[in-house]
Amino acid sequence: MSDAYYLQLTEQLRTLIDQNAAQWKGKLPAERPLAERFATTRVTLRQALSQLEGEGLIHRSNRRGWFISPARLIYDPTRDAGFNDYVRAQGRQPRTAVLKLESRVHPPAARALGLPDDQPFQHIRRRRYVDDRAVLVESLWVVPERAPELLDIYAGQSLWGLLRERWGHYLANRSIRMVSEALSPLDAEELSVAPGTAGLNINRAIFDDQQRPIEYDEEHWLHDSLCISVELSGQR
Amino acid sequence: MSDAYYLQLTEQLRTLIDQNAAQWKGKLPAERPLAERFATTRVTLRQALSQLEGEGLIHRSNRRGWFISPARLIYDPTRDAGFNDYVRAQGRQPRTAVLKLESRVHPPAARALGLPDDQPFQHIRRRRYVDDRAVLVESLWVVPERAPELLDIYAGQSLWGLLRERWGHYLANRSIRMVSEALSPLDAEELSVAPGTAGLNINRAIFDDQQRPIEYDEEHWLHDSLCISVELSGQR
Repeated sequence: MSDAYYLQLTEQLRTLIDQNAAQWKGKLPAERPLAERFATTRVTLRQALSQLEGEGLIHRSNRRGWFISPARLIYDPTRDAGFNDYVRAQGRQPRTAVLKLESRVHPPAARALGLPDDQPFQHIRRRRYVDDRAVLVESLWVVPERAPELLDIYAGQSLWGLLRERWGHYLANRSIRMVSEALSPLDAEELSVAPGTAGLNINRAIFDDQQRPIEYDEEHWLHDSLCISVELSGQR
Repeated sequence: MSDAYYLQLTEQLRTLIDQNAAQWKGKLPAERPLAERFATTRVTLRQALSQLEGEGLIHRSNRRGWFISPARLIYDPTRDAGFNDYVRAQGRQPRTAVLKLESRVHPPAARALGLPDDQPFQHIRRRRYVDDRAVLVESLWVVPERAPELLDIYAGQSLWGLLRERWGHYLANRSIRMVSEALSPLDAEELSVAPGTAGLNINRAIFDDQQRPIEYDEEHWLHDSLCISVELSGQR
């Protein structure tokens, strides 16, 4: 099999999936009829399917075949809307489950916020869903003095909304870092996928307009659920 | 093993690695003495090491143990510097190898640039290195009318520099999309890693100031080699 043939087959499959997604109701035909349709072997077909799986267009379900992945959420870090807002703006349904509320130290959060390693935080662990599919787990590390009763009253609402309405904090300066990752055993378990599955890690250190630290976010997304999008103009 | 213990061990290992990276010359001590140092089992130690591997801090080399990964390159999509410039600005050495020069159709590039599927492109396939480690492979799809003799003269230099100097094109409008991925068999082979290794895919559709399409880039990065960083200010 030449590279050129396998890439050509990948493009043909991509087009076929685009055109038939609605009719197929999210599930691809079985591999045998697909291979026959393109007059190719199942080995070659699987290589092309793996290419599209790596891109996040389709995913495998054990013994049940290949499925078309839901469209990725689009996230523009320069626009900086909250999760509930940008999910709804894309015609989809957000939901949040609170997994843990506790007080704890967390040196990576402390360092990102310029605080000593033994700084305690109010830790909120959440899982978030789009159209009832779990797409991310995250830890929020809030400086206790900024939101004293947070752990008593938090119940899954927008944290930024709460910080603004109840404590009058405006989240002025955000330092955002995004890296691809292999999901850790803990994050993978909470997302019901295998450890090592490709993921996207987004961290935000958030300060007020006087550069006082407010909170640190650590998000772990399923790799096929998010697309980061930035539009730039200006001559270069 | 409780979550709390495994996470605490992960943080202790992170600190130990930070403090000893220079002395260890990039290689971790063997698992047995490390486990003894923390009075833990090798099973628990490996779970903490896997957590740091997923984050990209360390990586495994078959039969040779655990190694500290080189620091990630920082890339700010809103600043939009070229690869050679931002690698050198971070005190590191860029290098580019040209893998392929050819004329070919590529429907995904055509769609991103608003052109018909059968539009031919000048395709440049490159592998790029930082300090002699291969960190990305990429395909550049250039509209032939914009750079007629490109395939004859291209030899690994900055494409944007060449488009500006030789053909007078200014790359005014960029639409950038970033997604986590599992590296495809072809991309993984060109980066000498296993297929399915976590990667980061960055695509750019580039237009001039009159919104005429110039080129489409498809980059595939090793997941532990790049950190996307954005700084925002302004009250929210």
